[in-house]
Amino acid sequence: MGTLGTLFAPERVAVVGASAREGSVGYAVTHNLVESFDGEVLAVNPNSDEVLGLDCHDSLAGLADVDVAVVVVPPDVAVEAVREAGETGIENVVVITAGFSEAGSEGAARERELVAIAEEYDINLVGPNCVGVMSTGVGLNATFAPMDAQPGNVSMMSQSGAFITAVLDWASDRSLGFKDVVSLGNKAVLDESDFVREWGEDPETDVVLGYLEDIDDGRAFMETAREVGRETPIVVVKSGRTEAGASAAASHTGAIAGSDRAYEAGLAQSGVIRVDSVQELFDAASILAGQPVPDSEEVAIVTNAGGPGVMTTDAVGDADLSLAEFSDGTIDELGEFLPDGANVYNPVDIIGDAPSERFERTLDVVLSDDNVGTAIVLACPTATLSFEDLAEATVEMQEAHDVPVAAVLMGGTSTREAAETMSEAGIPSYFDPARAVRSLDILAEYADSRTAEYTEPTTFDVDHERVDAILDRARERNSSRLGVEAMGLLDAYGIPTPEGEVVDDPAEAQAIAEDIGDEVVMKIVSPDILHKSDIGGVEVGVGPEEVWDTYEDLVARARQYQPDATIIGVQVQEMVDIDAGTETIVGVTRDPQFGPLVMFGLGGIFVEILEDTAFRVAPVSEPEASEMVDDIEASPLLHGARGREPVDTDALVETIQRISQLVTDVPAITELDINPAVATPDGVSAVDLRLTLDTEEL
Amino acid sequence: MGTLGTLFAPERVAVVGASAREGSVGYAVTHNLVESFDGEVLAVNPNSDEVLGLDCHDSLAGLADVDVAVVVVPPDVAVEAVREAGETGIENVVVITAGFSEAGSEGAARERELVAIAEEYDINLVGPNCVGVMSTGVGLNATFAPMDAQPGNVSMMSQSGAFITAVLDWASDRSLGFKDVVSLGNKAVLDESDFVREWGEDPETDVVLGYLEDIDDGRAFMETAREVGRETPIVVVKSGRTEAGASAAASHTGAIAGSDRAYEAGLAQSGVIRVDSVQELFDAASILAGQPVPDSEEVAIVTNAGGPGVMTTDAVGDADLSLAEFSDGTIDELGEFLPDGANVYNPVDIIGDAPSERFERTLDVVLSDDNVGTAIVLACPTATLSFEDLAEATVEMQEAHDVPVAAVLMGGTSTREAAETMSEAGIPSYFDPARAVRSLDILAEYADSRTAEYTEPTTFDVDHERVDAILDRARERNSSRLGVEAMGLLDAYGIPTPEGEVVDDPAEAQAIAEDIGDEVVMKIVSPDILHKSDIGGVEVGVGPEEVWDTYEDLVARARQYQPDATIIGVQVQEMVDIDAGTETIVGVTRDPQFGPLVMFGLGGIFVEILEDTAFRVAPVSEPEASEMVDDIEASPLLHGARGREPVDTDALVETIQRISQLVTDVPAITELDINPAVATPDGVSAVDLRLTLDTEEL
Repeated sequence: MGTLGTLFAPERVAVVGASAREGSVGYAVTHNLVESFDGEVLAVNPNSDEVLGLDCHDSLAGLADVDVAVVVVPPDVAVEAVREAGETGIENVVVITAGFSEAGSEGAARERELVAIAEEYDINLVGPNCVGVMSTGVGLNATFAPMDAQPGNVSMMSQSGAFITAVLDWASDRSLGFKDVVSLGNKAVLDESDFVREWGEDPETDVVLGYLEDIDDGRAFMETAREVGRETPIVVVKSGRTEAGASAAASHTGAIAGSDRAYEAGLAQSGVIRVDSVQELFDAASILAGQPVPDSEEVAIVTNAGGPGVMTTDAVGDADLSLAEFSDGTIDELGEFLPDGANVYNPVDIIGDAPSERFERTLDVVLSDDNVGTAIVLACPTATLSFEDLAEATVEMQEAHDVPVAAVLMGGTSTREAAETMSEAGIPSYFDPARAVRSLDILAEYADSRTAEYTEPTTFDVDHERVDAILDRARERNSSRLGVEAMGLLDAYGIPTPEGEVVDDPAEAQAIAEDIGDEVVMKIVSPDILHKSDIGGVEVGVGPEEVWDTYEDLVARARQYQPDATIIGVQVQEMVDIDAGTETIVGVTRDPQFGPLVMFGLGGIFVEILEDTAFRVAPVSEPEASEMVDDIEASPLLHGARGREPVDTDALVETIQRISQLVTDVPAITELDINPAVATPDGVSAVDLRLTLDTEEL
Repeated sequence: MGTLGTLFAPERVAVVGASAREGSVGYAVTHNLVESFDGEVLAVNPNSDEVLGLDCHDSLAGLADVDVAVVVVPPDVAVEAVREAGETGIENVVVITAGFSEAGSEGAARERELVAIAEEYDINLVGPNCVGVMSTGVGLNATFAPMDAQPGNVSMMSQSGAFITAVLDWASDRSLGFKDVVSLGNKAVLDESDFVREWGEDPETDVVLGYLEDIDDGRAFMETAREVGRETPIVVVKSGRTEAGASAAASHTGAIAGSDRAYEAGLAQSGVIRVDSVQELFDAASILAGQPVPDSEEVAIVTNAGGPGVMTTDAVGDADLSLAEFSDGTIDELGEFLPDGANVYNPVDIIGDAPSERFERTLDVVLSDDNVGTAIVLACPTATLSFEDLAEATVEMQEAHDVPVAAVLMGGTSTREAAETMSEAGIPSYFDPARAVRSLDILAEYADSRTAEYTEPTTFDVDHERVDAILDRARERNSSRLGVEAMGLLDAYGIPTPEGEVVDDPAEAQAIAEDIGDEVVMKIVSPDILHKSDIGGVEVGVGPEEVWDTYEDLVARARQYQPDATIIGVQVQEMVDIDAGTETIVGVTRDPQFGPLVMFGLGGIFVEILEDTAFRVAPVSEPEASEMVDDIEASPLLHGARGREPVDTDALVETIQRISQLVTDVPAITELDINPAVATPDGVSAVDLRLTLDTEEL
């Protein structure tokens, strides 16, 4: 039994609002339960004596040993019913009733009450505003959906009730079976993380599917998903991906989703397989539920038709898969029995006159090859081939070798029986080769994420006191926008910056410049002046004898340009030869669901025009930071393309991690940009900084 | 009747090799014809008296009025049969027999003979090595495929015979019907262009589908497709897209395809819709065959379910479509009758209790809005909705407004009848919203390509004599690799180059430098020295007094570095301030199928690392050249991003066109690179040039 106790394995279920009136939700739920539930159904309705043959109880009070209460009464009464459930000691309540946070401020207040009651009595509350829950293990259909789920090993949650009814209707004459199905509704108490955790502990759930419009607590979800995903693949459609979709989602459930970049990063970092369409969601479910996890991304193709074999090969080229290169032994063995005109190399073309025996023999050889991670069996209708025999042979070979297989049966009714045989054995089959390949691609993606070792983010020794001092100063000034005057934050977090300081009189400027001992850069420092260069607020290559005058010039120009600007001082900084290195940007934004989101890219046009960037949710581990540096398209520039000397990418990787630690430690930082962080073969230097503070968080 | 005469509308068909032996190809073809053909079938077999109730003739000789001869006899005899067909005056011959160019050099010789005979007698020859042809208009099934095609308005050609049998089997219980079906085989005589032309003239063909592994003559195909595509959409899977796929295709049909970039460019330039998968091919066929061409890419979504509405909106965001913005009138009208909780904005959520009447009324309003180009009807199963009624309402509204509609019926068996009703009316329906949206996307792509005016490439006045002189010199030297010594070619084609010349003595160098009147760049010119800088073969910023010595130094270094190098001289060139402009590259390669392929991109890392390039098949028209400049991701840099002054993109567009004209005029140029062509706000300057000549073409 999972973390949610008896929610999915109840013995007694009570319907609060059971009704004999056909067409009502109370009728539909009671009817579904009576029809299908293995346990006992109790009807609660003070206005009836009997509903669908069940004696009616006036209330939940006094009903013993009820595991789940399903609430379908109007919203006001519903809140009271949930309280009664709590008082009676019922652990699980499914509130189907609508009229809560989705329905204006009054509804939102009602939902807060619901949450308070659930917390007081420690109730596992599903909904409100949902279709209900199902669990095929005990024949539980506590929904008002007019169809049942077939039993199977896939559990599904959905933030759209309609999606659930649609999928159940569609799946009814397909071979997709479910263990548990949950309509998440408003997710007032139980949310996606709770169900992922539950199903992770459920031996009868082999795959978790989700349709989500938002994720309440991104970081918590990541943690749960990361753990559960090691054993149980999680496949999710997160809708509202596009700008148009996000605004449609907002008007649908009121979900205010963070940026899709955060979802993309957060889901990938926690090993969740994200798909974009319904077809992909169920194709993923089929192969993950039916086939073993592959050892490699090398695909073998066995076909009786050359052209479709080429199409399949193209699809492999499109995917993150590659064509397996057979061992010499395999090629020799195939050559021994395949006829003239056959191709013994991958894709193996066993030609049009192949009977199922030739498929079987070829599969036996190919699936024995250690270079083969997965295989596709592709058959077109011919006079010599029986699809049924092929199906049996394929199932046998797949089971004998325990290598994942997907099938392409390029025909219509003549393939139906074969498809069913395969499906029963967990081998998905499609007409379109691209779908079969995409399935294997998803399987390989899961294999990849499962084998990736999770690495804890590194914690560097940093100077907290110095950080506190800088933040104190910002609070005193009530500045929410900081610039180079906060370079000390970087220093405190061990990120190299050019030598220099912000000073507020010309003599100090002179002293700093003398310490630096070379020409310097001088910049006006003011939270009110954003575009310093535009007002002549920056001077480069300032010689020692010009420092005093330059200081006064910079301040004078700033005063003239913006008399009311707060002038903090002037930064005197060592000259960094930007041309000798590569400008990079390390940035952070704060996502409402996932928290700090760290960005890396090359400076200038690379980020601003080409949008060549990599994102990760903080805290960012060393391997993740390293991926960020490699993920951008311009990455070869850092690694020494076109005869350049490679820059010190280790230093970049460390800078990203240290920034990740800074923004994780200091929640008051809502945005941060190091632009540029100049990378050279010898290290990194953070030349300029801007950050935004939430002063209320300070 | 089309260009292929009676091939698809015969009255009398003869089978050479008709056989009574079940399991033989001669039996299958004869059987299919006897079973289905509306006209007369003649059996030719000197060894039988009768086949399947038909009297046997000894040969084609003497048979009158045969429109099509189908040849299934062994390869040697087949060649003779085709000659006999020619002598008898038979216009169309389908050679099913294999054993030609796909089978070694002997077969290739046999195929050449076949071609010669076909040319001599002006025979429309299909194949050899094919499955045959079908035409449902006259019940013609001249194939050995064990299934028939349903009649319809889609004509299909395929370079894979297996693909044809697969599709026919699959389509047999779907609503996809065909007019003509052709197995292209080896394309010895008739190829894809011939059938596209034929179907362009066939009023009964509304959509042309093709599965192609190569295109014999890319330019001819482009011309035909461009014309036919204005009236009849052409949808093609060109396989061998990926590297793996191309090598699989080569081993399958021996097709040596050019680069996929050429196919991509050539197909797009001629308005052919290229799809990647079988599913897309048939989804494209369904919507193109059934729905009108939309006026715009603005999609309206009408749904009874919010969540699936969001998924659909995401799919619109992924496509080249956008959500229609309704007029105020539409919004007011919808507000009048839609219930509370409905969303009157796009996507229109008419909520879960909607009966079909609400769908109908909403569609009536939405489809009247001029801002709506296409629409999606999306329905999930509910207690209040009859899918059948919805289907009828949708068909009625689609027909009344003549706006293209696709449907998403998110259910299983309960939707089947509705799907059929819609399909009969030409409205495709899917379970997955993404597929419906993708269909509309393809429809909009076709609308786009159809309305795009074709512009003839500009012909600029150029100096042919000068070009001839330069090429003559190259021939004399027998140089296949030219460099800056061929800058005159650019000059002759009106492409601006920096002032300068290639000279072969220091005094001339001095004179040129004096003419230029400023510091110059000097480069050694030798076809044998590729990396001039590496051997000190380039000097920049040479002052007037240093020119003589520099000349001698450059030559001396070259001789020392490579004593046997042919030294043409030294280029003395005006200094171009590369930093003041943007480096671009205009390049050309020659594709075996499509001829010269012109490339444009920004210099350096943009092309070499980011692969940010645009390709077009030459000759490139002005709008196409303009698209190339805009298509690259870095295009904003040329248009003045980040406060830069925009460069003279008109000059770039003209340079691309002039290069296109040069390589079209001079087939001997197999490769050409202007790198860099420096673009500034005032124009373009081609600073460096490399080209490769096919000296045998000179």
